[in-house]
Amino acid sequence: MSIQAPETATRIQLDEREMPTRWYNIQADLPFPGSPPLHPATRQPVGPQDLAPLFPMELIKQEVSQERYIDIPPPVQEALRLWRPTPLMRAVRLERELKTTARIYYKYEGGSPPGSHKPNTAVAQAFYNKAEGTRRLTTETGAGQWGSALAFATKLFDLECMVYMVRISYEQKPYRKSMMHVWGAEVVPSPSDRTQAGQRIRAENPESTGSLGIAISEAIEDAAGKDDTKYSLGSVLNHVLMHQTIIGQEALQQMERAGAMPDLVVGCVGGGSNFSGLAFPFLRERLTGRSKTRFLAVEPAACPTMTRGKFAYDFGDTIGMTPLLEMYTLGHGFVPDGIHAGGLRYHGMAPLVSGLANHGFIEPVAYPQRAVFDAAVQFARAEGTIPAPETAHAIRAVIDEAVRARERGESPVILFNFSGHGLLDLAAYDSYFAGTMSDVTLSEARIQELVAAL
Amino acid sequence: MSIQAPETATRIQLDEREMPTRWYNIQADLPFPGSPPLHPATRQPVGPQDLAPLFPMELIKQEVSQERYIDIPPPVQEALRLWRPTPLMRAVRLERELKTTARIYYKYEGGSPPGSHKPNTAVAQAFYNKAEGTRRLTTETGAGQWGSALAFATKLFDLECMVYMVRISYEQKPYRKSMMHVWGAEVVPSPSDRTQAGQRIRAENPESTGSLGIAISEAIEDAAGKDDTKYSLGSVLNHVLMHQTIIGQEALQQMERAGAMPDLVVGCVGGGSNFSGLAFPFLRERLTGRSKTRFLAVEPAACPTMTRGKFAYDFGDTIGMTPLLEMYTLGHGFVPDGIHAGGLRYHGMAPLVSGLANHGFIEPVAYPQRAVFDAAVQFARAEGTIPAPETAHAIRAVIDEAVRARERGESPVILFNFSGHGLLDLAAYDSYFAGTMSDVTLSEARIQELVAAL
Repeated sequence: MSIQAPETATRIQLDEREMPTRWYNIQADLPFPGSPPLHPATRQPVGPQDLAPLFPMELIKQEVSQERYIDIPPPVQEALRLWRPTPLMRAVRLERELKTTARIYYKYEGGSPPGSHKPNTAVAQAFYNKAEGTRRLTTETGAGQWGSALAFATKLFDLECMVYMVRISYEQKPYRKSMMHVWGAEVVPSPSDRTQAGQRIRAENPESTGSLGIAISEAIEDAAGKDDTKYSLGSVLNHVLMHQTIIGQEALQQMERAGAMPDLVVGCVGGGSNFSGLAFPFLRERLTGRSKTRFLAVEPAACPTMTRGKFAYDFGDTIGMTPLLEMYTLGHGFVPDGIHAGGLRYHGMAPLVSGLANHGFIEPVAYPQRAVFDAAVQFARAEGTIPAPETAHAIRAVIDEAVRARERGESPVILFNFSGHGLLDLAAYDSYFAGTMSDVTLSEARIQELVAAL
Repeated sequence: MSIQAPETATRIQLDEREMPTRWYNIQADLPFPGSPPLHPATRQPVGPQDLAPLFPMELIKQEVSQERYIDIPPPVQEALRLWRPTPLMRAVRLERELKTTARIYYKYEGGSPPGSHKPNTAVAQAFYNKAEGTRRLTTETGAGQWGSALAFATKLFDLECMVYMVRISYEQKPYRKSMMHVWGAEVVPSPSDRTQAGQRIRAENPESTGSLGIAISEAIEDAAGKDDTKYSLGSVLNHVLMHQTIIGQEALQQMERAGAMPDLVVGCVGGGSNFSGLAFPFLRERLTGRSKTRFLAVEPAACPTMTRGKFAYDFGDTIGMTPLLEMYTLGHGFVPDGIHAGGLRYHGMAPLVSGLANHGFIEPVAYPQRAVFDAAVQFARAEGTIPAPETAHAIRAVIDEAVRARERGESPVILFNFSGHGLLDLAAYDSYFAGTMSDVTLSEARIQELVAAL
């Protein structure tokens, strides 16, 4: 069979033997002290015993580890190989269309069975729980991307899975619920009658459409009360972000093979996990003085946590059951408007991402919804793949940077995380084409009010 | 970064430089004479001039070519590299669950932007049309897998695309229509008021839900009447099957790297293109005496074309506008019941597949719908990826063969084509879990009636 090297490699694909076997833990390289989570009652740093009812001990250790690299257990590697290593793509068609002098690369994480980066941590969490005797995991989900990833992972490691899905999403987005059923998970609309928290909300308001905060309360209550059950979170925490660094570890190898190191790394941010997964291994190069790469975190104007929020201690959930975390936040009582990028509707931000932004290593930027979908459609028509609404935020920023580069006559290398495909979000595209998509932006008055309350 | 070779490679991933640069044309190796398409009026073989109103000359040449290999034009290679080479997976988790002595491999074609193997030929057809001055392509689609692939491909090559979508699918399966809109195609429900054929049907029956046959008539009429417009077909024809052989050409290299050549190759069949794409390069080894590999073509019991149909000359469409093709058929007037595997609801079969089956090189087998979904769910829970209903037919046969191998103490190597994912078919899974899925099987009496009429 004849073999021909393309003049421009559109696709850089690692061999299956090149998949990284260690996660990168950025806590080992931070040039500033970390801020510990505080117990809400005592305001003292929480200890392992406080977290043991919810998480297996190995994940609690990872949460505070100072080891630079942590080995990926072989059964987790085997599970990751169902869709990894993932390709690095050069967006040559988009570059041509933009007539940009920039080179644009993206890491494609949409090829996993649930269609996003989320299973990178879901399989690790399922493995450690199984290894420590957990029989059942609980979690919350909004639009369903995290719930479907955990349903997939628990099936691989033979655990039961209970997903509390925000009621309005349960009713309006039936197909991610269908995916969870295929993988054998139990899915109930939240607020449910399974927990005291759910019962209380339903008694107060039988028509409640639910919220992520309520669903978290239900999932935590369900896990905390049972010996064989633990709780799983899909973003924000240090160990979750670390499990995602396999993305950036692969991308480092692929960019080296492309002969191009990024001048700019871009990702969307909700809780911070897909952004961190790509950025942290490249941030290490910057923290250790080996690069001057910039890092851009893109959020929705409807939930401008980093661009407009306050850096402060706050609860991770809406009800106030979690430890206090130091992070950018709009206040744990803030419920963002219903934009299509459900994965970015979070009042806070991962403490590691927040700390790095607070020290100037990460630049935040926010975009309104329609501008984001303009970019999503432009990308899909140039490169083929239809992005999830979350991913489209990163694409909006990349296109703007590429156009600026052309105007300035610069030739930066831009790398972004294509965190998931949009094949289960096509109703959002219908709304965009129908002209019924609203441009939800948090008002200046409301921002002032939220920040003043912190 | 440390690198570790897995004991069992779950995934075999070709380098981007290993993508084949030639298609394999099985017409060069057939041990029996081909049967030409006949003009419906004269019953004489059709010539290039008969097909020129519908297809560009290069595709007409490929349709009858005796060249063993045909070069893939570089712009087509560049488009294919958006998702190729595709991975070859070993289904180690499924093997474990079945406790089988067989080794099971699958070629994963679900990673293309539209989610199936269909764009392998769509990008080639779009390219040749663009090169010969076509401005606009028309086609038909049922559930939308082919229509979305052609919408994607025409956008890459800057052609307009007009899709006649069977009205009942247009109304019941809105999201493949949404995909086509994202890629800029125009989609109308068929029967439409755009063509005389559509107007006639609507005059006779204003409530017509449409059929693939009617949609083909509309697409052909639209193309035949305009100088700048041609027609595109997603299966059945020789050149379409040849464009799909990139699947098997890649798999040949990957199976060599795995150190395992298949004893059995399996694919589902509707028109025959995904089956042929994987099988033909391996069939070459058998036709030339270098292997004894078996080939299994899996069809629905609701449309048992090869297992129960007749090998005869028949029309390719329902209305009778196409040339007569020698193939297995249940009669061009036969409209299969509405199973979820819309891509397998075709009364005929590709002439190349039909001829090879008629000469004993391909074995057909048929399964009813619920048994197929049992296999789909078993696969998704073992291997993660959720299969399209079409692909699940191949999986049903593979599981049965693997169980038989265990019972017989044999250790065959089985390879099948995972032609597409099921993320746009989740309503079918809902129906399966709700217990409302019917087991449509064509009755013996109806089969006798259909075959007697041929």
